[in-house]
This record gives sequence, C-alpha cells and structure tokens, in this order.
Amino acid sequence: MAQTLQTDTNRAVDQILDHYRSDNPGVRANLHRLLTSGRLAGTGKLVILPVDQGFEHGPARSFAVNPAGYDPTYHAQLAVEAGCNAYAAPYGFIQQVAHEYAGRIPLILKVNSHDTLHDENDPAPAQTSSVKDALRLGCAAIGFTIYPGSANWKGMYEQLRMLAEEARDHGLAVVVWSYPRGSGLSKDGETAIDVVAYAAQIAAQLGAHIIKVKLPSDHLEQDAAKKVYTSERVPIATLAERVRHVMQASFAGRRIVVFSGGGKKGEESIYDEARAIRDGGGNGSIIGRNSFQRPKADAIKFLHKIMDIYAGKAE
Amino acid sequence: MAQTLQTDTNRAVDQILDHYRSDNPGVRANLHRLLTSGRLAGTGKLVILPVDQGFEHGPARSFAVNPAGYDPTYHAQLAVEAGCNAYAAPYGFIQQVAHEYAGRIPLILKVNSHDTLHDENDPAPAQTSSVKDALRLGCAAIGFTIYPGSANWKGMYEQLRMLAEEARDHGLAVVVWSYPRGSGLSKDGETAIDVVAYAAQIAAQLGAHIIKVKLPSDHLEQDAAKKVYTSERVPIATLAERVRHVMQASFAGRRIVVFSGGGKKGEESIYDEARAIRDGGGNGSIIGRNSFQRPKADAIKFLHKIMDIYAGKAE
Amino acid sequence: MAQTLQTDTNRAVDQILDHYRSDNPGVRANLHRLLTSGRLAGTGKLVILPVDQGFEHGPARSFAVNPAGYDPTYHAQLAVEAGCNAYAAPYGFIQQVAHEYAGRIPLILKVNSHDTLHDENDPAPAQTSSVKDALRLGCAAIGFTIYPGSANWKGMYEQLRMLAEEARDHGLAVVVWSYPRGSGLSKDGETAIDVVAYAAQIAAQLGAHIIKVKLPSDHLEQDAAKKVYTSERVPIATLAERVRHVMQASFAGRRIVVFSGGGKKGEESIYDEARAIRDGGGNGSIIGRNSFQRPKADAIKFLHKIMDIYAGKAE
Amino acid sequence: MAQTLQTDTNRAVDQILDHYRSDNPGVRANLHRLLTSGRLAGTGKLVILPVDQGFEHGPARSFAVNPAGYDPTYHAQLAVEAGCNAYAAPYGFIQQVAHEYAGRIPLILKVNSHDTLHDENDPAPAQTSSVKDALRLGCAAIGFTIYPGSANWKGMYEQLRMLAEEARDHGLAVVVWSYPRGSGLSKDGETAIDVVAYAAQIAAQLGAHIIKVKLPSDHLEQDAAKKVYTSERVPIATLAERVRHVMQASFAGRRIVVFSGGGKKGEESIYDEARAIRDGGGNGSIIGRNSFQRPKADAIKFLHKIMDIYAGKAE
Amino acid sequence: MAQTLQTDTNRAVDQILDHYRSDNPGVRANLHRLLTSGRLAGTGKLVILPVDQGFEHGPARSFAVNPAGYDPTYHAQLAVEAGCNAYAAPYGFIQQVAHEYAGRIPLILKVNSHDTLHDENDPAPAQTSSVKDALRLGCAAIGFTIYPGSANWKGMYEQLRMLAEEARDHGLAVVVWSYPRGSGLSKDGETAIDVVAYAAQIAAQLGAHIIKVKLPSDHLEQDAAKKVYTSERVPIATLAERVRHVMQASFAGRRIVVFSGGGKKGEESIYDEARAIRDGGGNGSIIGRNSFQRPKADAIKFLHKIMDIYAGKAE
Repeated sequence: MAQTLQTDTNRAVDQILDHYRSDNPGVRANLHRLLTSGRLAGTGKLVILPVDQGFEHGPARSFAVNPAGYDPTYHAQLAVEAGCNAYAAPYGFIQQVAHEYAGRIPLILKVNSHDTLHDENDPAPAQTSSVKDALRLGCAAIGFTIYPGSANWKGMYEQLRMLAEEARDHGLAVVVWSYPRGSGLSKDGETAIDVVAYAAQIAAQLGAHIIKVKLPSDHLEQDAAKKVYTSERVPIATLAERVRHVMQASFAGRRIVVFSGGGKKGEESIYDEARAIRDGGGNGSIIGRNSFQRPKADAIKFLHKIMDIYAGKAE
Repeated sequence: MAQTLQTDTNRAVDQILDHYRSDNPGVRANLHRLLTSGRLAGTGKLVILPVDQGFEHGPARSFAVNPAGYDPTYHAQLAVEAGCNAYAAPYGFIQQVAHEYAGRIPLILKVNSHDTLHDENDPAPAQTSSVKDALRLGCAAIGFTIYPGSANWKGMYEQLRMLAEEARDHGLAVVVWSYPRGSGLSKDGETAIDVVAYAAQIAAQLGAHIIKVKLPSDHLEQDAAKKVYTSERVPIATLAERVRHVMQASFAGRRIVVFSGGGKKGEESIYDEARAIRDGGGNGSIIGRNSFQRPKADAIKFLHKIMDIYAGKAE
Repeated sequence: MAQTLQTDTNRAVDQILDHYRSDNPGVRANLHRLLTSGRLAGTGKLVILPVDQGFEHGPARSFAVNPAGYDPTYHAQLAVEAGCNAYAAPYGFIQQVAHEYAGRIPLILKVNSHDTLHDENDPAPAQTSSVKDALRLGCAAIGFTIYPGSANWKGMYEQLRMLAEEARDHGLAVVVWSYPRGSGLSKDGETAIDVVAYAAQIAAQLGAHIIKVKLPSDHLEQDAAKKVYTSERVPIATLAERVRHVMQASFAGRRIVVFSGGGKKGEESIYDEARAIRDGGGNGSIIGRNSFQRPKADAIKFLHKIMDIYAGKAE
Repeated sequence: MAQTLQTDTNRAVDQILDHYRSDNPGVRANLHRLLTSGRLAGTGKLVILPVDQGFEHGPARSFAVNPAGYDPTYHAQLAVEAGCNAYAAPYGFIQQVAHEYAGRIPLILKVNSHDTLHDENDPAPAQTSSVKDALRLGCAAIGFTIYPGSANWKGMYEQLRMLAEEARDHGLAVVVWSYPRGSGLSKDGETAIDVVAYAAQIAAQLGAHIIKVKLPSDHLEQDAAKKVYTSERVPIATLAERVRHVMQASFAGRRIVVFSGGGKKGEESIYDEARAIRDGGGNGSIIGRNSFQRPKADAIKFLHKIMDIYAGKAE
Repeated sequence: MAQTLQTDTNRAVDQILDHYRSDNPGVRANLHRLLTSGRLAGTGKLVILPVDQGFEHGPARSFAVNPAGYDPTYHAQLAVEAGCNAYAAPYGFIQQVAHEYAGRIPLILKVNSHDTLHDENDPAPAQTSSVKDALRLGCAAIGFTIYPGSANWKGMYEQLRMLAEEARDHGLAVVVWSYPRGSGLSKDGETAIDVVAYAAQIAAQLGAHIIKVKLPSDHLEQDAAKKVYTSERVPIATLAERVRHVMQASFAGRRIVVFSGGGKKGEESIYDEARAIRDGGGNGSIIGRNSFQRPKADAIKFLHKIMDIYAGKAE
C-alpha cells in the first residue's frame, strides 16, 4: 500500500478521503482499505459482491441456478478471484469465511435482514448481527438497509443511527442500502429519480460513508418535487444524467455512491449501466445475482469487464 | 470576547444570561457564544441559518433553484460570510463542515428529522444523531423538533427530555423547534396565536434554552382559549402584538425566542416580519430557504438588511 | 427548627412522621421540611401552591386574567409571601426560580405533564423531567400524575414506580396527583366517592408519601362498590364524611392527603371546602388557579384565611 | 430452629427442600423460613394471609365490612396472631409494617398489581414494586401474578422471568399467582381442571418456588385436552382428585402449591376445601377475604381450624 | 475423550467442527461435547430428547399417557439411559435435574416458550429463561424457537440475535428450532420443502450452530420459489432428497441439522424417516413425544433402533 500511495491513481483515493475528514483514523483506514483493494484499487471506483439473497429471497431462488453458491465459501472466493473491492453478506455467511478471508478482502457485515416468508407493504428489517460481531469477524464495515417510504421509517433510521455511531466509534465504515419502498410510494416511485435522489440524501444525512441505491428511472413521484424538476430543468433524461443527479443529492459527490444491479439480466445491458454510472460520476456497482448466478469463470469475466469500464480500460 | 464584555451592547447579553442562572457554566458559555457571534454579536438578537430541508423536503426541492446548495460546505460558508449567529443542520451536513467551521461559527446539530417520503398526519421525527455526536463535532447546541398537537406528542416530549438532560449535563444548549401539527389541530390551528403561544410555553417548560416557533396568525383555535383571549382582551391584532404575546408565553420573555421565515417569499414581506419581531420583543429569526435559495451575494445582502433591522441600524 | 421541635405543634408532625418509619432519613427529612415550612409549620396541615396549568391548559387560559403570572418568579414569590408549605411546578418554571428559592421554600418538581393540544380520552402524561433534575435544583420532592381509569394506567403506574424508587433512594419525597379519568369511567365517576377513595388507595399502595385527590362527590360509580357502601352504610352524605372516608382509604390516615381546589370559584365555597377537609381529618389543600388568578394581595389574604381554618385560628 | 431440625416434622420440610437443590442457599433459607414459621411450622403445610384486595378491588369493597382492615398494621398483626406462615401484600401495605414485622413473620412483597377502574378482558398487571424494595423491606419472597390465557401473556411471562431471576440471585423466593383469564378462555375455563393444571405447569416451568392457583372445577376447557383426560381416564371427579392432579402437573409434587379461597363464604365449605387440599396432597391455602373480612377473633379461630385440618389435628 | 480422539469415528466430529472455526473454543468445546456424548458419540450423528410439551401443549396432553413423565427427573434419566446426545427442556424442568445431570449428559436450556391457552395465528414465544440461567445450570447450549412466516418475525429474530451473541460470548452453543408458521403461510406451507429449506437458511444466517426443522413435504408454497424448483429441476420427490436439499440450504451441509419427529406415531414410519434423514445427509433427530409417551423400556429400545440406523448398525 505504501507503494501505491506514490502512484497517480491514489490521487483519486486521496480526493475521496478528503471528504471524510471529520471521521476518525479508524474509519478512514477502513475506507482506504475498501478503495485500495482488488482490481480497482486506487481508482476511486468500487465493485462490491453482496450475497444476502439467501436470507432476503430464500436459498433455492438464489442458488439453485448455480448450486455452488449454497456454499458460503464460494462467494468469498469468487470475490477474491474477481478482484472485487469487498464482499458483503449477513452474519451466517460472513462467519463461515471470516477466519480465512478477513485478511484477504474487506468484509462488510450486513447487520439487518428481511425475509419474504412474511412480506409486508411497509418493510422493517430485523437486526441480525452487531457491530461487535463485525469487529470480532475482522470486517471493514457494517451494512444496513433502510426503506424510506415505509411506515416503519422512524424505527429503521433510529436503529441505523445507533449502529452507525457504534460502528464509527470502533473504526468501522457504514454502508447504507437506501431502498425506497412502502405505503408512502407507488411501485414506480421506488425507482423514481426524485425518490432515489431523496433516498441518497437521507442516507448521507444519517451518516452513511458509502451509499447504495438502485439505478433511477426518469419517473417523478412526488408532486412537489415534480414542480421543481420541471421549473429548474434538472437534467434527468439519460441514465448518466440521473446518476449525476444522485451524486449531486449525495452532498455534491462528497459521499461514495454505488449502484445496484437488480435481478439477473443480459450482460450488455449491465455494461451499459456501468458506462452510465461511470459517465455520471458514480463510484461503481454492487452486483449480486448477476455475479453468483453465473458459472464462476463467466462471472469473473463479466466482473472484469465491468471493472475495466470503470477503470477506463474498456469502452 | 473579553473586549466586548466592556461594551454597552453586552448589557443586552448579560440581561439575557441572567435568566439562565440555574444552568451550568458550560451551557451558559455556549449561550454566550451564540449571543456574541456574527454581526449581531452583543445585541441580544440572533439570525440563525438552518439547513435541514434536504432531509425534510428532499434535495431537489431544496437546492435545485440554487444548485450550489447541494454542497454542504456552501451553507456553512454562507452563514459565516453573512455573519449569522449560528448554523444549524442534521448530522450529515454538520459532519461535512465541522472540522473546518466548528471554531468559526457556533454549530447547532439538529438531532431529529423527518422526511416526506412517508408523510403522517401525526408526525413523529426520528432521532438521527446524538449529544455525543454534537460534542465530537464541536457544536454549541443541539436542535430538536417537537410537534405539539400530534398523537405522538408523548414520545417526542420524552425523547426531548432525555436528550436535553444529556445535553445540559455536557454543557450544550438546547434549541427546540416547536411546531404545532397533527390530528389535534386544524390546518389554520398550526399557526393560530393561542396554539403558537402554547407551543412556546411547552418548549420552555420542557427546558428549551432557545425556542423556535412560526410567526402566528390572529386565528384562535381552541374554544377554551378563545374565551379567555376575548374576555381578557389580549392584544393580538398586529403581528408585533402577537410576537409580544408569544414572548409573554415564553416565561415573560425569560427565554430566547426566534421566529422562522417559512417558504421563499418577497423580501419586503420578510423585512416587515423582522420589524414586527423586533417591535414585539422577539430575539430574532431563523431563516433557511429565503437565504440559501437566493444567489449567495443576494442572500448576504438580504440577511444583512434583516440584521440591520434587529440592530436598529435600519428601519 | 431545633426550636420548634420542643413545641406542642410538633406533636402533630411527629405523629405523622411516625407513619413513615420504613422510609430513609433523607425522605423523612424532606417530609419534615414540608411539614415545618410556612405559616402552617408544625400543625400537620399543608397548603401547597401548584402551577402546572401553563403546560396543562395553556399560558393564556392560565395567566391572562392576572398577567403577572406569565413570569415564573411571580409564583415562587407568591408562595413564599403567602406562607405556603411548598411550591410545585414543571421543569421550566422550577428551573427559573430554583437558584433563588430552593432554600426559601420546599420545591416540588412535577416530573410528568400533559397538554390539551392533543387531548385523549385515555390520558397518559409525558415524563418531562427527572429525579436528577429535582436533586440538581434543590427540590424536596417530585410530583407525578396518574390517571386511574385510563386505558394507559399500566404504563403510568410503572413509570411512577421507577421514579418513586429512584426518588426515595435519593432522599426525595413523592407526591402523587391521583386523578381518575379515562374510558373506564363516566364523567361523574371521576369524582365519585368510591372512585376517589380507590384512587387514594392506589396512590398509597404505589408508595406515595403525599397523595393529592379531588374533593369527592356523593356519586357512586362502580356497581360492586355501591353494593358495599349501601350494605355497610358507609357515611358519605356530607363532604366532611367523604373526606374522612378518603383518609380511611389512605391507610386509615397513615398517609398525608391534600385536596385540590379545581377551577376558580367563589371564596366562600372554598372556605367551606377547607372546613370540610379539616373536619374530615384531611391534611390540607393544594390550590392553584384560585391563588394565582387573583391579584397578589387578594391571593395572600385568601390563602391566609384558608390556613387559619386549618390552623384552627378561624372558623 | 436448630431445635426443630431434630424433630420428626422436619422430615416434611427436608423432603420439600430436597426438590429445591438447584437453588442457592439464600433462596433455600427463605423457603425454610416460610416452612418453619407459624403454627404449621415443620409440617410442610402453609397458610398464608394475602391482602392485595385494596388495590385489586378497591378499599371499601375490601375493608368496609371490617373497617379495622383499612389500617395496614391490622393485617400483619392478624397474620402473626393467627400463626400464618407468611403475610403477602403490595408495596404500600408492606412498607407500613416492615420496620416492625419483617423479623416476626415472613413477608411476601406482591410486585405487580391490577385495579378494576379500567378493567380489561385481557389483563396485564403493572409492576408496582421491585426486588430491591423486597430486599430493603426484609421480605422473604416476591409475589407475581400471571394471567395465562390473556392476550398479554408474553409480556407478563417475560416480566416474571426477569424479576424471578433477580429475586433468585438475591436469595428471595418467588411465589407465582397463576390465574387463567383472558380472551383465550371461557369464564368456566378459568377454573377448569385442565386449565388450572396447565397454569400450575406454566408457573413451575417459569421458575416459581411456590405456586398459587384457584381450586379447580371438573370442567374441561380445551378440546385437545378433553380427549386425553377421557382416553387416559385421569381421575378428576372429586375435589381431592383434582388437587392431586394439579400437584402432578406441578412436577409430580416437586413444587409447593397453595390454593386460594376466593370470595367470602360459609366456614364449613372452606373446611371441606381444606380437607380436599390435604387429601389431594396440596401444600395449603392462601386465604384473604375469608380472613380479614371477619372480626379478628373469629378470623383467628377460623384460621386455626384450617391449620388443624392441615396438621392432622382436626378432621 | 482423549482416547476417542484417536479413533476413526472422530474424523466425523473433526469434519463437522471444521465448519465452526470462526467460533471460540468455548462454543467448540460444547459442540464437541454434544457430538461425543451418548451412544452416537463420535459418529457425527445426534439423537436429542426434547421435553417442552408440558409448556407448549399442557401437562395432561403430554404426560397422561405415561404419567411417569410428570416428574422432570424421568426425562433426564431416560435420555441418559437411552444414550441420547443431549436433553433439552425449559427452565423449570432443567433446574429440577441440573444438580444431578449437568455432568452426565449435555443439557440444552430452551430459553423461549409458548403455550396454547392463548393461541395466536402469528405466534411470538416469550423468553422464559436466560443465558445466565444456562451457565448457572451447567448447560451446553441454549435452545430458541423462531416462527418464520409469523407477523412477529422481527421481534423473534432480534431476540434470538441478542441471546445468541450472549451465548456465544459465554461459550454456549445455540440451537434454533426454526418452525415456519403464521399469517404469511398456508397450513401446508408450514412443512413445504421451499419453506423448510428457507427456514433452515434463516436459522443458519442468524447464527444457529445446530438447526432443528420439521421433515419437509414435497409441497411448494411460494410462487417465486416454485418457478425455480421447476426450472432447475431441484430433486425433491423423495424424503431423502428433501433432507438433502435442506442440508444444502444449511450452507451446503456446513451446519448441523436435526429433524423433529412430530406427534406420536407408528415405529416403522419413524424408522423410515430416520433412514431418509441418514440417506439425505442429515445429522439426526430430535424426538420428544415418540420417546417419553412410550413406557421407558419401549422408549429405550425404540431410540436405540433409531441410533443404530444413524450409526449404520441397522438398516
């Protein structure tokens, strides 16, 4: 690392860390680790492998298509081989690999989760692990999901507040999955550009070091917002413009923002999304199902291509 | 500061601090800081810049009209350049600027917030930061919003009680945004003079060092109150009279009360409001959107004019 | 005080304190202070000035008729000048006067409160200050309101239990306002003799050192109770008899019980009530609105007359 | 006591304490005290005087018929004079007598209570005192009521669990009033033999050292249970058989079980109940209203007769 | 034990413990104890005797058919004589035997329970004992039931998280009963293969060291899952295949999974189930009613036969 600190690419890392000056050296060290791990080390870009679908959607829906994925070690190994910046998962999956992988790749412990055996209009995930777990397991960060727009928003924000404070105090970074959903929103509203930008702002105000949102559509959900987007002619026509607007809503780009891939789909459309994220100034991707639901060799090739797009090595 | 302690204007500050004799030296020192910072230093008047609209209303609705405001450093800089007494914002915005601005201008950490992605008739904000955060970030005070009239009043008052005690114990001042709203009130009732005066009294009884209320209308909401206002001929016809009545309800003027500006509007009407606050004995204004939604130079000119009204340098 | 310990009147105090032998010296010292302060010192009788109406009913409804009362210092001064045994109020009012008055008159910090901006059929007050506050402000006791008959009774009793234990542990006395109200009762039932006696019993069982109830009517609310009052011919025809019955329900007079005056009314009717309290063996009155809503001189004369009735100096 | 340890009757006590071998010496010492106090000392039988009706039913309904009972000292004195094994009551009543009686008779502090001013289909008592109170007041045990069959069962069981753990850790015994009641049961079901036996089992599983249940009827409430009672021909025709079955459900008699007397009734029917409890192997009675609602002399004669039945001195 | 560490069978134990490398030596030691106790010691297979039916279904329904079972010592003795790996029960039953049996057989303290006196569509068990209890009573593990599919899932998962963390920190293993049930599921869905596999995954993600599920049917409950099982042709036709799939869902067999027997039924069908569990790679059975509802000698013979099936000594 001392070596890379001399290189040109670390200007990107330094520039980013410059926005985290209020944070203590422990948090900054872990953000540094995330930004200097894997094939994108030093570029200021990240590709993270998250595997919480076994909990969120069920094991067969997640892993039957590529049964190697039932084994928790598979994913950590895939993340290492593909050169991801980090691997994120709930307690069970992380504790299966921590003793071997904690030093090899930054681990993000997903500390709340939700299943679909009792699905709610207004989701409220359960806390399923702790900051103490993350420390014991050698993780670099905790991950926490909030659902802005849910009737249960207050409980989630307050739980995040407490965990984020505890994490920061112990030198861990905080990654917030900010997924608008609930009775306050229409189905289309969940990915509407005004709502996604708002969700990013909320995560940033709540103290997220890294924000994860879905790629936004050009739908406008809230009347009061629509009026402003129209009158001020906020550019939201292209995906790159919408990414740029989300970055703006994330404290004018002063927070790291990664975008999620969603369900499995064609490779080309994902490469296009990566290009839009890059062109809009986003920090990268968090790609689960599109990685681990492919055979390992394909997944690595696929992830490398995305990394190359971010690194400017591929169109 | 030792110097200003000799000047005539500090009689105003001493007179105010005289009402805070039950408080410990830490709290009194921070109130002193708030009263001796900026262009109104020593006058007993305050103009505070609050920027919580990114959380409360969404980023585009707040900042699209003046996109410089997406950047959290913009506001702290604006507050300093305009000579405000303090800058108030939620965690995310404050932690972006604390390392640079904590010594230059008193910071008020807004420790609870609310968004409009799931809006409620009976609001109950989430605690989004802590007294410990405020201390770590070098703030002079915490800010907390209560909604008297909401079905959730009990939870809010109790949360405020706990945070206020903790803040006082650590030498921080407590600023309470007391905004009547909820199923106990009509829409007009939210700014009715009887209700606003009641809201100020509640904040004072709960231990607020500084109370923030909206400018009241001459509407009377509660029947039992209306009877008294009529029989006792409480003067509430002019805005200045209503401000005076709110000060009366704030322990006969023994609490600092600032009034909020509301949505963006014409400059002249705001100057008129400032004059009424001054004439009614109020302690000043807390002006958000009308400041940061103007271009910076305009905003500074506008804020200086208001300060001059309070300082008696302008009509 | 050493002096008064020799006098005849202290037999009354000793007799009362004899019922508090399970309490620690700190609590007993504060009860002693309450019983040996003011014009009724040493008589075993108490007249207490409570001013929580600014919070409970709103400032204008409470103080507009005598605007001096907007100022919190007015009430403490009135209590001292009138020779009351104690002054009771919520946090805001007490902390305004504590630095000057804590040594001059026993202060009772009202630690829970309720407003009428969102009124409920089943009230549940908010905790608005703490035992720690009471200690820091030099108070002799905390005051707490319960509403037996409310659907929220359980939460209130448990909150009282915790605060009472903490208060006792720190040598503070506990005053319980026991006001039946809620969906379990009719409007008339709130002051029915069976219900008021029950409310006194509950407060005593919960550990109140001093119980405050309303003066009961001869209405009988509960069928199961009515049967007993009739078959056992419990005398409840006169107000004095009803006071005597309430004292009986308060552990056969082993608890101090004071009765509240209610809304402002004619002087003579209040004197009659005081006579009934005296004749029924009650310990005195807690008189708010009828005190501070009169001009100060009138209020003092009025309170002195009541004290004289209790002291046996006036019919 | 050293003396009685040599006598034949202590075989009964030793036999019982043998079932409490997992408990610490402090708990065992207090159980020993309960079993070696009063006229039934050393017999393995208990008659306990409980007076919580002032809280549970109201003062007049409880004490008007024998007004001496308004005075809390009356009951402790009655329990001592009658030679009861223990006296049980809520905080207010216990703290009135503890300084005089704590050494003379084992005291049981009833730590939760319920009133009838707001009566519920699904009762959930309030915690009204603490283990710390019980220790400070010199009690031998805490008492706690659960209502199996109430929709609020979970909260009650968890509150009991916490208090029982704290009590055990401090050497106090735990007495559980297990009274089936609530929307899960019919009125008859509250005393049905299957339900009472189930309630005894629950109390035992939750860690009760002494279980108090009502005398069961031969009604069978639950269909699934009825099937078993019929197919296995569980003998439940006589009261003695039903008592025996409840003892069976109480870990094959490895827990102390006492039965409650219910409302005031004829002496002979209570003597018959005592004979059935004795013949069924129960450990005794807990008799409130039938004791303190009689004149003292009668009550003592009445209690002695019951004790003689248990001791084998009377038919 | 040192001796058995040399034998061939311990390869099975070592292989299993290899999946628990993130756990501390205390937890691993207790897992080792569970795997090296009883007749199946060293085989990697377990047969556990659980007796929580007295609490869950009532005493008569559980024990009337074999009344010896009312006595808690009966079951511990049965478990020892039959050579079970462990004995699991709620607090009351465990504390009756701990002083004698804690060293003779690993004890699992069931720390939450539920009764049927107030039955719910969406169950939420009460915590009925603690990690501290388990330690004091010499247990090897705690047991906790969750009901995925219940509307109360969040509270249960969070309670489990806290208790599991506390247990692990103190070297205790965590056994999770994962029983899908509640308004999110149909009756058939409770044992549907997709749901049972999901329930196993959830328990594993929440940190269960040992998972207990019901034997799954070939029903598919969730539409989104059904699609995948069909398209990916997941083999679920035979019971052995379904067991294998559940093991797959349990981190590809990296967690110990035991299957429950359900209500009393014919011996042969249970032997068939054991063969399917063995053939599918499951770790064994947890057999309550089918054990203790038979006469002791029969039960031992019956359990030995099952153990022989697992040990490969019987077909």
